[in-house]
Amino acid sequence: MAVQSLQDRYAPGRICFGCGPANSQGLRIKSFVRGEEVHADWTPQPHHAAFPGVLNGGIIGSLLDCHSNWTAAWRLLRERGASKPPCTVTAEYAVKLSRPAPTGAPVHLQARVIESSGNRVSIAATLSAGGLVCATCRGVFVAVKPGHPAYHGW
Amino acid sequence: MAVQSLQDRYAPGRICFGCGPANSQGLRIKSFVRGEEVHADWTPQPHHAAFPGVLNGGIIGSLLDCHSNWTAAWRLLRERGASKPPCTVTAEYAVKLSRPAPTGAPVHLQARVIESSGNRVSIAATLSAGGLVCATCRGVFVAVKPGHPAYHGW
Repeated sequence: MAVQSLQDRYAPGRICFGCGPANSQGLRIKSFVRGEEVHADWTPQPHHAAFPGVLNGGIIGSLLDCHSNWTAAWRLLRERGASKPPCTVTAEYAVKLSRPAPTGAPVHLQARVIESSGNRVSIAATLSAGGLVCATCRGVFVAVKPGHPAYHGW
Repeated sequence: MAVQSLQDRYAPGRICFGCGPANSQGLRIKSFVRGEEVHADWTPQPHHAAFPGVLNGGIIGSLLDCHSNWTAAWRLLRERGASKPPCTVTAEYAVKLSRPAPTGAPVHLQARVIESSGNRVSIAATLSAGGLVCATCRGVFVAVKPGHPAYHGW
């Protein structure tokens, strides 16, 4: 059996713009666990550009945000020995854009846990193209409690 | 004559995902100068959600990034007494999400200059809904020189 992405395995019906498998107009990233890291390859469409041939910084942030959020959810799933990940949301994320990322080729996302404490997980992630890092990201993601709009949202 | 948005006035043919008037699949924000601030109202579509009824954090970052970038470009245009804004790109941006923003109603963007030095401008911005701030953003935006992929990109 082929290995499934975290999204397809745990939230196939989710409609999130960045990572929902069921959002046909979304980015639909597919994140895969490799050891202590989580990886994804994603191919831009022309309307994701900032300038012709260069990927938009908001799209870059969207990719890194959702990919990092899934990395956090995966960490909490493992820590808790649960059968499915908790509902996690973004508290904050910060993106640094170091070089233009092209729209004409796939980009690669890589994320790892920096710190995990209680229901909060800090993640470091990169977006690279052709083996060169184009953007870095730090984010904090939180497992929400009952009553939050995201609880049971996926 | 009606007042035009910065985007429609200075870059009607631009295809940027966040702010390009010519990108029919983009967010197409319209930013208006009001005194020392720049404002925009924007209405989400269903596919911009994170969870049903809640706006995606990557979309929130995309809105704040492009709106802030235009605020920086506008500042440089005024400082230089130019007839059109320089080509500015995002160096970095950081988003804090303080409460869920709904998808069922317009959101409001507000941005102002924190610091301007040479070709770099720092911007503070907020995204609010129903009068409540849902997200804050700090970003640094840079006017690019000849040779950068964005130069003459719009």
